Amino acid sequence: MLTKAELHRLRSLREKKSREELGLFVVEGEKVVAELLAAQFPFTTLYVTDRAAFAAPSSIRLVEITPDEMARASHFPTPSAVLAVGPIARPPLAPGALDRGLTLALDGVQDPGNVGTLLRIADWFAFDRVLLSPDCADLFHQKVINASMGSFARVRVHPADLPAVLAATTAPILGCDLAGEDVHALPPLSDAIVVIGSEGRGLSPGVAACVSRRVTVPRLGGAESLNAAVAAAIVCDNLRRAQTPRRGAR
Amino acid sequence: MLTKAELHRLRSLREKKSREELGLFVVEGEKVVAELLAAQFPFTTLYVTDRAAFAAPSSIRLVEITPDEMARASHFPTPSAVLAVGPIARPPLAPGALDRGLTLALDGVQDPGNVGTLLRIADWFAFDRVLLSPDCADLFHQKVINASMGSFARVRVHPADLPAVLAATTAPILGCDLAGEDVHALPPLSDAIVVIGSEGRGLSPGVAACVSRRVTVPRLGGAESLNAAVAAAIVCDNLRRAQTPRRGAR
Repeated sequence: MLTKAELHRLRSLREKKSREELGLFVVEGEKVVAELLAAQFPFTTLYVTDRAAFAAPSSIRLVEITPDEMARASHFPTPSAVLAVGPIARPPLAPGALDRGLTLALDGVQDPGNVGTLLRIADWFAFDRVLLSPDCADLFHQKVINASMGSFARVRVHPADLPAVLAATTAPILGCDLAGEDVHALPPLSDAIVVIGSEGRGLSPGVAACVSRRVTVPRLGGAESLNAAVAAAIVCDNLRRAQTPRRGAR
Repeated sequence: MLTKAELHRLRSLREKKSREELGLFVVEGEKVVAELLAAQFPFTTLYVTDRAAFAAPSSIRLVEITPDEMARASHFPTPSAVLAVGPIARPPLAPGALDRGLTLALDGVQDPGNVGTLLRIADWFAFDRVLLSPDCADLFHQKVINASMGSFARVRVHPADLPAVLAATTAPILGCDLAGEDVHALPPLSDAIVVIGSEGRGLSPGVAACVSRRVTVPRLGGAESLNAAVAAAIVCDNLRRAQTPRRGAR
């Protein structure tokens, strides 16, 4: 059973402003919620249309609601059987954190699907953290969480004023660019920051000024550019590959 | 000026069935139409709301219509200033064609955005052709064309019964998989077919049976899989990299 106030609150969470005010976000869909539960994401409440169909730890409040109530609470035309509510957390970046390990920094990536795909890539390649500039798609947008395929719960994501934090780090900063050095020539780097810009505009001027190496995926054909997530993935693969040289290779 | 019959025909082209019957497709949007014109795509007609704003070769019929007519003809809630109509062409694959050069084969990739991104990747890496299995998203779906960012007009795309054509080729067939050999160990191959399966199901059994090498992007973190286009792009990059060994590498 859903009170009118609770329904109103759930519906309001589709807006970023309400999410920030309440410190909460929602995510819907059996598959994505199951993935996040498997990754032990600390949801506060699960709204389900069939209590028997969903196993959740006792720390999570389980509320059974009718399909009609779900249809009203859902942000989608076709509601699923579960709607989860969780706390928004944006851990600040500790001073010096970027100096160690691998960081993927997103500079104005506005498409939520791309941001989610980039989280999944950072997770696959075991990057230590992801940074989001203020003009990226909101991490707690449902499309970001869905596209991340569970990586949302596993990757450490920090909001960051990129020009400021990049200027302060000692780690090399690799900017994905159309006119840089060949990504196949990357040396082994155990500490590095990979910066990827927006699809349309590339790196912002403040971030471009901090980049220590521009790297490019060699283009052989006619396409003008690669999708931002595709380019970042190729750079991440080459970075990891350079760290683990193969017999006969450098 | 748009006749009622013409309007009806344009609107009908959002359905694959009508596209096939008429042998025509539509694509809307200034940016994508300009990209395709730049790549010399042989559109038959451009419908524009401002004739002066669009330069097209004389072989293309230019029809000026009112914004109100465009709003009715458009397949989108927010119409653009141009709607282009072009002929559907699905060139058959010549016997033996797969034996030479690089081929990207899509096995049941149903998301139109992924299919478009994969065309862009094939174009970037100068693959000789792309094959689409019958259960892939339709090449002439507007979302495929838009996501390809102009590569739709540059890449040779053939429909293909994959198990049959793969069984008949002499080229090695690389299947992108979660449990194959390390993609970083690929030997130089000037002739090869890279097969990518659907996001949810991977390679279909008939195609998997034809694969001569399963290749995997080494996973270091927690993500269960990579997006299909991302995985294909990394395999294509490694294939091209193996072809052009660097000083000090194999």
